[in-house]
Amino acid sequence: MENKPNEDEKEFLDELEDNLHNAIDASDEKQVEEIVESISNQEALRQASRMNADDRDQMMTIISPESAADMLEEAPSGLAADMLENLDSNVAAKIMDELHSDTQADIINEIDRESGEAILLAMEPQIAQEVRKLSQYEPDTAGGLMELGAFSFHNNETVGAVLRRLASDDDQFDRYRGQHPYILDETDKLVGVISLRSLLRSKRSIKLAEVMQDVTSVSVDTSQDELTILFDKNNFLGVPVTDHQGYLMGVVSRIEHAEAELERSEQQSLSRQQIGDELRSMPLWQRAKRRLSWLSSNIVLNIIAASVIASYESTLTAVIAIAIFLPMVSDMSGCSGNQAVGVSMRELSLGLTRPTDIFHVLRKELGVGIINGFILGILIGLVVWFWKDNGYLGIVIGLALSLNTLIAVSIGGTVPLILKHFGIDPAVASGPLLTTVTDMAGFFLVLSLATFFMPQLIA
Amino acid sequence: MENKPNEDEKEFLDELEDNLHNAIDASDEKQVEEIVESISNQEALRQASRMNADDRDQMMTIISPESAADMLEEAPSGLAADMLENLDSNVAAKIMDELHSDTQADIINEIDRESGEAILLAMEPQIAQEVRKLSQYEPDTAGGLMELGAFSFHNNETVGAVLRRLASDDDQFDRYRGQHPYILDETDKLVGVISLRSLLRSKRSIKLAEVMQDVTSVSVDTSQDELTILFDKNNFLGVPVTDHQGYLMGVVSRIEHAEAELERSEQQSLSRQQIGDELRSMPLWQRAKRRLSWLSSNIVLNIIAASVIASYESTLTAVIAIAIFLPMVSDMSGCSGNQAVGVSMRELSLGLTRPTDIFHVLRKELGVGIINGFILGILIGLVVWFWKDNGYLGIVIGLALSLNTLIAVSIGGTVPLILKHFGIDPAVASGPLLTTVTDMAGFFLVLSLATFFMPQLIA
Repeated sequence: MENKPNEDEKEFLDELEDNLHNAIDASDEKQVEEIVESISNQEALRQASRMNADDRDQMMTIISPESAADMLEEAPSGLAADMLENLDSNVAAKIMDELHSDTQADIINEIDRESGEAILLAMEPQIAQEVRKLSQYEPDTAGGLMELGAFSFHNNETVGAVLRRLASDDDQFDRYRGQHPYILDETDKLVGVISLRSLLRSKRSIKLAEVMQDVTSVSVDTSQDELTILFDKNNFLGVPVTDHQGYLMGVVSRIEHAEAELERSEQQSLSRQQIGDELRSMPLWQRAKRRLSWLSSNIVLNIIAASVIASYESTLTAVIAIAIFLPMVSDMSGCSGNQAVGVSMRELSLGLTRPTDIFHVLRKELGVGIINGFILGILIGLVVWFWKDNGYLGIVIGLALSLNTLIAVSIGGTVPLILKHFGIDPAVASGPLLTTVTDMAGFFLVLSLATFFMPQLIA
Repeated sequence: MENKPNEDEKEFLDELEDNLHNAIDASDEKQVEEIVESISNQEALRQASRMNADDRDQMMTIISPESAADMLEEAPSGLAADMLENLDSNVAAKIMDELHSDTQADIINEIDRESGEAILLAMEPQIAQEVRKLSQYEPDTAGGLMELGAFSFHNNETVGAVLRRLASDDDQFDRYRGQHPYILDETDKLVGVISLRSLLRSKRSIKLAEVMQDVTSVSVDTSQDELTILFDKNNFLGVPVTDHQGYLMGVVSRIEHAEAELERSEQQSLSRQQIGDELRSMPLWQRAKRRLSWLSSNIVLNIIAASVIASYESTLTAVIAIAIFLPMVSDMSGCSGNQAVGVSMRELSLGLTRPTDIFHVLRKELGVGIINGFILGILIGLVVWFWKDNGYLGIVIGLALSLNTLIAVSIGGTVPLILKHFGIDPAVASGPLLTTVTDMAGFFLVLSLATFFMPQLIA
């Protein structure tokens, strides 16, 4: 996280890369494991993502499954899947066995079907069964976010039994840090929870059924958004997840949820460029193809915008200087519109604006649009006037920018609300829609105003 | 969080707004409190942000300090500061007393100095003193992120004392959920921590000094990034924060840290539009002014790019059709460049790329640039050829787009790394820098190639 890496660091990293490469080439298991152990999991992952595929597979095979798993826990699930896919399925299975259950399911969902099936067959049967179960749930539901299993007791057990378990050396317990014990009835359905305070206050011989409290739980289908509301309203460190019959499946911790929110927010800001989950460690053709699919649809939008210019060719021929200012007007209004998009996205994510607030937003944006359009129009008008020594040209460009700023902020402010209303992700679609409209409107305004003022412009 | 609010919801919200407005106008305390209690804190905040300032101040004064505080805990600190600033300082102080200590400090840092001082003087002296202390720390340090106070005991107290405290009805305890008890020596310095397991296993008469374990702590100056590494490496639910003398000041919980990371990620994606923390509830002039400051610097960048076009006016006059395709080439390469920026931002945030990796990134981007530049160039070349019935014009535009795509991905991929190397936030500065360069390069390539092929173009 250093902002200013110095030469020493670069040297250290280069040397590390060489040493690791040589150790892998020499199949020196001990040396490779030592190097990987000596650096952070993130740095190990960075090294792995820079290697060629053979070296990487070789490294993953040589190091201990625990070290490999630590590295994969840090990786986005797409990268983790790539790193396992081509390994021997027994090697991959040993690594998978060491991962958290939610990471396992995420990876299985990303891996190609055949390799995934081979790995699952080679894994410990019980773990594999759990992974199959978990991987059915959508990643943005309680089922997809939960860690399987919970710290649970039956309601006919005693307070003493729970305290003994808490005091024991049971390794399992570490997984449940911070969880309250959940209580199940004789048919294994979730019926309550018990606080540490109640445990410490009650006689050890008392049955849990007598001291347990009501519990708030969610179903495997509960969405990430509903969980957000639940965690906002309550102080829970975690919430138990049940299946449709009411059996306890696992727990979504507040932390897991917060991390999923962080990932989603980063994903959204990236999806604007339509790069998906690209990393430079992916194959060249795949990276080029993905980026192209968005770029080539962009060609169509650009052709539509350009056709506006084409229809005014005679005006352009008469006043060639207009060509200089066309990109300027469309670019400047695009920026104004994107600012309005940004404010709407922020207010949507804070819950301060709802899709029904279109007219409220429009009114607020028009205020800013009138002020900024007026000021920007005068500024650019003056620039054009002095640059081209033509006052009427200044009026044409300035007026066009003023009006187009107004259009841009109105569209920019409301489009995210409209898209959200129709269930389309506004983070992805707002930008391209806005740019095409502001381009077309900008070109149209400049060229039609120029046509109107033609006598004065060429005087 | 509904994606498709229906008419019923809109009606309900409109009615709510009217009822709330009428109750506030009538100063009907009971009714206002009832309405606010009946809706979520987020909805209450949304209503408050839509009212005029007088109604809002009136509402904040009427409702209980607890309800007002619940609402402010949901608000970004800038909005919370606005909502308190103009209240009677006694009213504001009562609300402040109810907030979490880290929220209090964030708000005091946002509020204007004079109102802030008046509110602090009216608050409970002990709380006010804590706020003054906390507000000295930068928000992205352990000091700024911590909640003051911790669940702590002296090393000469007994295991029994801790268990009694855990079993007591002490309200304070709720604040410390999930925290392990921290142990201080006789001079109040942090010396250890004790797990629940050790507590339950030890005799009640044993001194804490004998059973405590070593504790990992951070200093008030520890940065958010260092905390990220710490929480990544360890399973801690929270980490204690000490001042420079080693006295325990408070605790940063893993959750608090994850939420701060989420906020920072959202902030970064917004800072690209330079809208800062704008909400539409802010005064019109302030909103217009902030947006303008970025737009007007953008004018300068645009003028520089436009001057490239201006210097080729004779070429434009000869082949007016070029004006149609100028914005297209610059826009398309801008998109390609932004994709490369997006991948670099993602890899930087995942730790897969470091500022020293410039040549690695450049090599990877050139691969994509060559493929996509080639394909896009041919596509657009064909479009131009058939549209304008001029093969040479197709070659000029296609070649310009190919070359400019190569330039755009090279710059887009490396600029974030270079900015980060110099300690500049790449999320903010990459976009404008990239756009200006790709615009200029695009205009230059199209026009200089057109000049070169002029004899064929006008044949």
